[in-house]
Amino acid sequence: MTEDELIARIRERLRDVGEERLYLGIGDDAAAWQPSRNNRSVITTDALVEGVHFTRGAMSAHDAGWRALASNLSDVAAMGARPVLATVALGFPQGTDPEWLLGCYDGIAALAKQARCAIAGGDLTRAPAVVLAITVVGEVRASNLKRRDGARAGDVVAVTGPLGASRAGLRIALDRPDLAGQDDAGSSVTERGFGQAVADALAAFRTPQPRLREGRWLGASRHVRAMMDVSDGLSTDLARLCAASRVGATVESVPVHEAARAVAEHTGDDPHAWALGGGEDFELLASIEKRAFGHLAGRFRAHFGRELRAVGRITDGAGVRFADGTVVAQSGWDHVG
Amino acid sequence: MTEDELIARIRERLRDVGEERLYLGIGDDAAAWQPSRNNRSVITTDALVEGVHFTRGAMSAHDAGWRALASNLSDVAAMGARPVLATVALGFPQGTDPEWLLGCYDGIAALAKQARCAIAGGDLTRAPAVVLAITVVGEVRASNLKRRDGARAGDVVAVTGPLGASRAGLRIALDRPDLAGQDDAGSSVTERGFGQAVADALAAFRTPQPRLREGRWLGASRHVRAMMDVSDGLSTDLARLCAASRVGATVESVPVHEAARAVAEHTGDDPHAWALGGGEDFELLASIEKRAFGHLAGRFRAHFGRELRAVGRITDGAGVRFADGTVVAQSGWDHVG
Repeated sequence: MTEDELIARIRERLRDVGEERLYLGIGDDAAAWQPSRNNRSVITTDALVEGVHFTRGAMSAHDAGWRALASNLSDVAAMGARPVLATVALGFPQGTDPEWLLGCYDGIAALAKQARCAIAGGDLTRAPAVVLAITVVGEVRASNLKRRDGARAGDVVAVTGPLGASRAGLRIALDRPDLAGQDDAGSSVTERGFGQAVADALAAFRTPQPRLREGRWLGASRHVRAMMDVSDGLSTDLARLCAASRVGATVESVPVHEAARAVAEHTGDDPHAWALGGGEDFELLASIEKRAFGHLAGRFRAHFGRELRAVGRITDGAGVRFADGTVVAQSGWDHVG
Repeated sequence: MTEDELIARIRERLRDVGEERLYLGIGDDAAAWQPSRNNRSVITTDALVEGVHFTRGAMSAHDAGWRALASNLSDVAAMGARPVLATVALGFPQGTDPEWLLGCYDGIAALAKQARCAIAGGDLTRAPAVVLAITVVGEVRASNLKRRDGARAGDVVAVTGPLGASRAGLRIALDRPDLAGQDDAGSSVTERGFGQAVADALAAFRTPQPRLREGRWLGASRHVRAMMDVSDGLSTDLARLCAASRVGATVESVPVHEAARAVAEHTGDDPHAWALGGGEDFELLASIEKRAFGHLAGRFRAHFGRELRAVGRITDGAGVRFADGTVVAQSGWDHVG
């Protein structure tokens, strides 16, 4: 049973369970409800498990905490919302060094402070491995809430940044720790450039930046018809956006992160595959009205100093294809087997 | 390091992290924020871990799901709030029977339906054991929100029902499964009574009823000065309420559940210890203005057909003592060692 099949069967079971109170239920980046007439609150939850999403060898306590919050904040960003607060449920094995646990909260606090997100409470419990389940609540003006299901044929599909750097960082952390932390003193310009690429890739993997400002800005545009975050890989997530909107898409150009390109060249990997299927980049994926795209991209560049990159077009019919007609394989992460 | 010490050190780290957005932060049954002027939203999170809180042998999937939601709903009840929605993060080992997972959602859905609480979304992930982390959001009129820190010397301490039945059910499930499911046909009146006690104890353990209606009703009374739920045992939880309110308490009478008394007699345990330290009963513990208690208890009885039971009095100074002056040991559950 795949994750999506299991989710479908779970949804059947939860139908008619107080659904009338929800403005938007299971299946988007976050669920939404209506605390008062002109406001929507959104909520999302995400768990990070030792041995599945990270190992204590390859990731510090600080970075585990940061990442666990980042993936939730990214979901809030994808709704066009701003975070209000988070709760943290932390399970850990008996004998875990309390300093490790406190380091984990340091990472959570560092990102929470940057994102102006309060940590409202939580739960501590024993568990056979470290499990960090974070829930974030956000707020958004009703008219700015973005869902996955609004894409229409002809829309431009765009991402808020180049992809694949997080996957490159994972590759280094898991298989090539020798590349990290090299002393670049005295090395050539090319080597210093590579050292920077390694550092950028590791940062993208360890302390990813959720696109909160970009999400609110795109949420405020009525030309953005659908939005989600790229957490499981562009190929998988674009297919999900298309399925929710009952459309297809053509992928014309996948922006590969410079750091991913440099690392992949060194390790002999395919950076295009990392950008398409790597996941965990936490850029936002938006479906934007075609006639408005050029103007919006210009304003985006002026506001954020970075590019809103077109990756393709929304089409009639189902499925995600490359411009030459070949099907885009859904090679993204799937933690449920 | 104890759980409370670890929590204190975590709180230090999370100070100044967006706290201005919270109406009530870490340390109560739930945190609260202000979605609009006259309303408060509350949020609470709680995790259930296989091998720590339950085993798949001693508890069905349905009951694990029910209990995980029940402990969260009980926290919402303790704030005087009504539940709006829940999110569910579920981790499970590779190879877990999907039917077990769906059974778990059946238990969640059954209680969610009864409580009119929507299931808004969640996360599925691999994990080394089943981990069920649930977060519930509730709503309450600002004036009805109850905290732990309002108790004053002279108040009557009361609980919404007798205690110890859940602990009796745990004893049967873990050590005396032979007592469960006995065929009572043809047995004596006494034996039929015992069969009923076993069934009641198991039900209290497996499918506890969060006191949502009672919580909202008590929340609406200005004579209720502080409230929390009894999840870790009366001795531990009353000490927490007293610490939050900077008062002490005298315990005069602990209402022992009839089923706990009958099971304990059979197993040779001390039902009084179960009632005082057993935990997981999910009754509400309230500190009530003395002059209003009699009238309120009468209205409670008329409304719910059950007793609001006085267990003691709030006193000046610190600590929880029995009427004879001996200190009440904090023998409650503590999953963090």
